[in-house]
Amino acid sequence: MSKGEETKSRILHQAAELFNQQGYAGSSMSDIMRVTGLQKGGIYNHFQSKDDLALQAFDFAIARMKQHILFALRSKRNAVERLQAIIGVFSSFADNPPIKGGCPLLNTAVESDDAHPALRERTQQAMNSWLHLIRRIIETGIEKGEIRPEVSADEIATVIIATLEGAIMMSKLYGDSIHMHRVINYLNQYLQTHL
Amino acid sequence: MSKGEETKSRILHQAAELFNQQGYAGSSMSDIMRVTGLQKGGIYNHFQSKDDLALQAFDFAIARMKQHILFALRSKRNAVERLQAIIGVFSSFADNPPIKGGCPLLNTAVESDDAHPALRERTQQAMNSWLHLIRRIIETGIEKGEIRPEVSADEIATVIIATLEGAIMMSKLYGDSIHMHRVINYLNQYLQTHL
Repeated sequence: MSKGEETKSRILHQAAELFNQQGYAGSSMSDIMRVTGLQKGGIYNHFQSKDDLALQAFDFAIARMKQHILFALRSKRNAVERLQAIIGVFSSFADNPPIKGGCPLLNTAVESDDAHPALRERTQQAMNSWLHLIRRIIETGIEKGEIRPEVSADEIATVIIATLEGAIMMSKLYGDSIHMHRVINYLNQYLQTHL
Repeated sequence: MSKGEETKSRILHQAAELFNQQGYAGSSMSDIMRVTGLQKGGIYNHFQSKDDLALQAFDFAIARMKQHILFALRSKRNAVERLQAIIGVFSSFADNPPIKGGCPLLNTAVESDDAHPALRERTQQAMNSWLHLIRRIIETGIEKGEIRPEVSADEIATVIIATLEGAIMMSKLYGDSIHMHRVINYLNQYLQTHL
């Protein structure tokens, strides 16, 4: 990485954590200058506007989440084990998220849905990609006879994501990962007995 | 209601819908003046500050949600039917929320958890009360023999709330209630076969 690329990547990480904690609307240019230790010009060297930074910081945060998920999947071949590996990643996200402030997908979905069309579209794309990953695992599992053929890949994908995201919200609200652990325990049992 | 009380209640409703769509940080005093059609003084007649309005508007929004849930519960005695009635309320929330902008509990939890301690505390209280309602229904159902005694009231309360809130997030993100309907279908089947 060149010095310029390093600086850009550092800004993206710091801005992603700021936005993930305070929201985009709740983060001023002065907040961004404070967390990056840069002047406005130093930031605008790399990003056209606060919105451009918001979109790229979101992509950065989602890429971090994906890395963790792909790492957890790397040695798992069986479909149910692959789903459980994804769920397991969230166990660590509750206590120690890769991007401070919880799940960027949840936070950005909730902030952008009525207020920020460009960010909402980016969040939809990230959600599409996550739904697709889980659906494909289930469909492959059905093809290989690891999952019962009557299981609805669409329904299970929605349920897994909704339950995990709701549990992140509850664990973050209380500062207590008990809600995430209850949900993980429940989802693991459900997958073992119903797929 | 006196004229003053009527005005106050109208401000609370309009502010609750504004905050629920744009967030507290994303709503300026001018936004509040625009949606209420009042001057700053007219608003400060009823509320000490934007934060005071935020807390009271949150309570107003939660009270509205509660009304719908209590109404759905009024004729149901069996514990599983009572849980299904609560879940059914969310089916209509996805298409037609009582407060525009989705679920105020979800939105406010996500916005306040790292950013607004007073609002976070209020959201924790609202969540406590919702968890308590579901837990009590399950415990009463166990006492009356309508629910199996080995069911964990804590776990099911967390799972129901997490799943519904996650599904609201997804349905709002896509502007498509399919995710809510999948989750409701799934939860109803789960409750029927597992409790």
